[in-house]
Amino acid sequence: MKLNIAVLAGDGIGPEIIAEALKSVQAVCTKFNHELTYKEALVGACAIDATGNPYPEETHSLCMQSDAVLFGAIGSPFYDNNPSAKVRPEQGLLAMRKKLGLFANIRPVTTFPSLLHKSPLRSELIEGADFMCIRELTGGMYFGRPQGRSEDGDTAYDTCVYTREEIDRIVRLAYGYAQKRRKKLTVVDKANVLATSRLWRQVSQEISAEYPDVETEYMFVDNAAMRLIQWPKSFDVMVTENMFGDILTDEASVITGSLGMLPSASVGIHTSVFEPIHGSYPQAAGKNIANPLATILSAALMFEYAFDLKEEGKLIREAVAASMDAGVVTEDISEKGKAYSTSAVGDWVASYIKNK
Amino acid sequence: MKLNIAVLAGDGIGPEIIAEALKSVQAVCTKFNHELTYKEALVGACAIDATGNPYPEETHSLCMQSDAVLFGAIGSPFYDNNPSAKVRPEQGLLAMRKKLGLFANIRPVTTFPSLLHKSPLRSELIEGADFMCIRELTGGMYFGRPQGRSEDGDTAYDTCVYTREEIDRIVRLAYGYAQKRRKKLTVVDKANVLATSRLWRQVSQEISAEYPDVETEYMFVDNAAMRLIQWPKSFDVMVTENMFGDILTDEASVITGSLGMLPSASVGIHTSVFEPIHGSYPQAAGKNIANPLATILSAALMFEYAFDLKEEGKLIREAVAASMDAGVVTEDISEKGKAYSTSAVGDWVASYIKNK
Ligand SMILES: CC(C)[C@H](C(=O)O)[C@@H](O)C(=O)O
Ligand SMILES: CC(C)[C@H](C(=O)O)[C@@H](O)C(=O)O
Repeated sequence: MKLNIAVLAGDGIGPEIIAEALKSVQAVCTKFNHELTYKEALVGACAIDATGNPYPEETHSLCMQSDAVLFGAIGSPFYDNNPSAKVRPEQGLLAMRKKLGLFANIRPVTTFPSLLHKSPLRSELIEGADFMCIRELTGGMYFGRPQGRSEDGDTAYDTCVYTREEIDRIVRLAYGYAQKRRKKLTVVDKANVLATSRLWRQVSQEISAEYPDVETEYMFVDNAAMRLIQWPKSFDVMVTENMFGDILTDEASVITGSLGMLPSASVGIHTSVFEPIHGSYPQAAGKNIANPLATILSAALMFEYAFDLKEEGKLIREAVAASMDAGVVTEDISEKGKAYSTSAVGDWVASYIKNK
Repeated sequence: MKLNIAVLAGDGIGPEIIAEALKSVQAVCTKFNHELTYKEALVGACAIDATGNPYPEETHSLCMQSDAVLFGAIGSPFYDNNPSAKVRPEQGLLAMRKKLGLFANIRPVTTFPSLLHKSPLRSELIEGADFMCIRELTGGMYFGRPQGRSEDGDTAYDTCVYTREEIDRIVRLAYGYAQKRRKKLTVVDKANVLATSRLWRQVSQEISAEYPDVETEYMFVDNAAMRLIQWPKSFDVMVTENMFGDILTDEASVITGSLGMLPSASVGIHTSVFEPIHGSYPQAAGKNIANPLATILSAALMFEYAFDLKEEGKLIREAVAASMDAGVVTEDISEKGKAYSTSAVGDWVASYIKNK
């Protein structure tokens, strides 16, 4: 099979973790006889520095021509310390989501037995938790208009908008995943307060009739924020709108204690983007200490979701598990004094794939 | 001193927990020679049943004439199971907030050593956590207009609006609390995406100059959702807008493991409302098993915040601590087989106050 991917390393540790993920991608392609073509492009702070635009037109057209995008991370201390800078790395991320039509961000939340002790939750609560957060990514308050200020500057406003179509497509996607998993869908909204949430609930109630094999649960967002901590194992697939999803998916990712291990997929109309959940971690940039496993696992998702190559994804996952079993991991998850470098971990995983 | 309060018991366990709180209020008034007058009125599902309105005009005028409102809880299974009922208990709550101008909801989050094992977090993370969440309560998406549907019903919209004035008054309130505490204020927003958040950040940055003794920290809401779990002790006072506050304050309340113990105060233009954080818990209604301590502690806040009667509040708090030390507590927090009833706990606390 021909695999044509765009590689957007971004800022901070982005280039280092992407380099390691590419080693595994290449190893898998060699093993399974796929023909890999990939091109790199700029996004985020490095793109602003080079072109003034955090998501340059060139980068966008490369993504549009690709079957999948492997993405590192964006953000830099300069912008963190200058919150009012006019052009910001985040704008590149939002522009990319909108222009590529990346309407669904999918985050599988899993735990790793060897990392349970890193979870802020008591082990018995989190052990075995295994669910999936699906966040709407191109609607809601992130893109609703009007947004801005009154003339005197003393009143600000944002608009949350959702259409039946936007809700319909993501709720169906969520039901599809629920059917392949434990057949439970939690629709999270604030229907007791918001008109958009009432449309979410109405549309998902209508659709639920078409998926009688899936149990549908409706939950208010404040309750979901509590339940994630009190009883994470009660979730299978959760679907929610953009802003609630921003908050809940981040909450969901820290309860596992394995933030450096979690991949994500953003499914789009034109292409799909695969990236680790964690940020650009500028303090670690250039030190060869960042954990590449979330990015390598994002590559596994890419094989599965973008190319429907299940065996390939499975082998990458197996290689990552093996590296953890062997203790070949970076300092964030290693035993004291037994840390490997970013590239040592990446090499180990790629050579496991090769030699399998 | 003359204390003139309105008592709104509401639904479910509301009447039972309010009855116990009133015993302590009366005991304190007797002890300190305050003249207590109180009147009861309907709110929530019981008000809909009796009058068709979840916040009847009569209830509102009683609140307007009172120096403080002691509030139980609202909500009933009938409405939970009929999410599309036109008139709903929550509307009464929202109407009350708006009409009384209750612009700030204040939730002190504290832990109880004897309840640490009930927390979903590892004890070392939560032990000693002591912070305060201040949530804006009469603005944002809860009340912003336009809100509704397009003519064909297929598009829904909500509006988030904030004015400089609304932000200014609550941020100043938050700084005031921070000054009396550990002098740290965390302003939570989503200024990298929302225009309203950028106004929040701008106004609070301006105000911060007037409070040089307080360290101000700005945090994105997704980051705050993670930090509450990873490092709750890093917070002193947190202030945020209505919807983010709804989610974060509920998240903050479960990490302590003592949801049944947490009081809140809603500070208003016309009066203030004091209520437990927990809900109406309909399954427990009428069984004399509900934990009255959060409501009793809400009465303590009432003495302190509404009447500036610090000694009175302190004595109530001391009585509650003593009941816990003595093991006179309800089943949700008791040792196995050693539970007391709602009224037994209420009697014990009131008589502690009397005999002190
Ligand atoms: C950087 C920011 C705009 C972004 C978001 O809010 O979507 C981030 O928090 C995320 O979740 O990817
Ligand atoms: C019942 C609901 C409208 C309310 C809110 O969202 O404010 C509740 O969740 C709360 O926090 O008091």
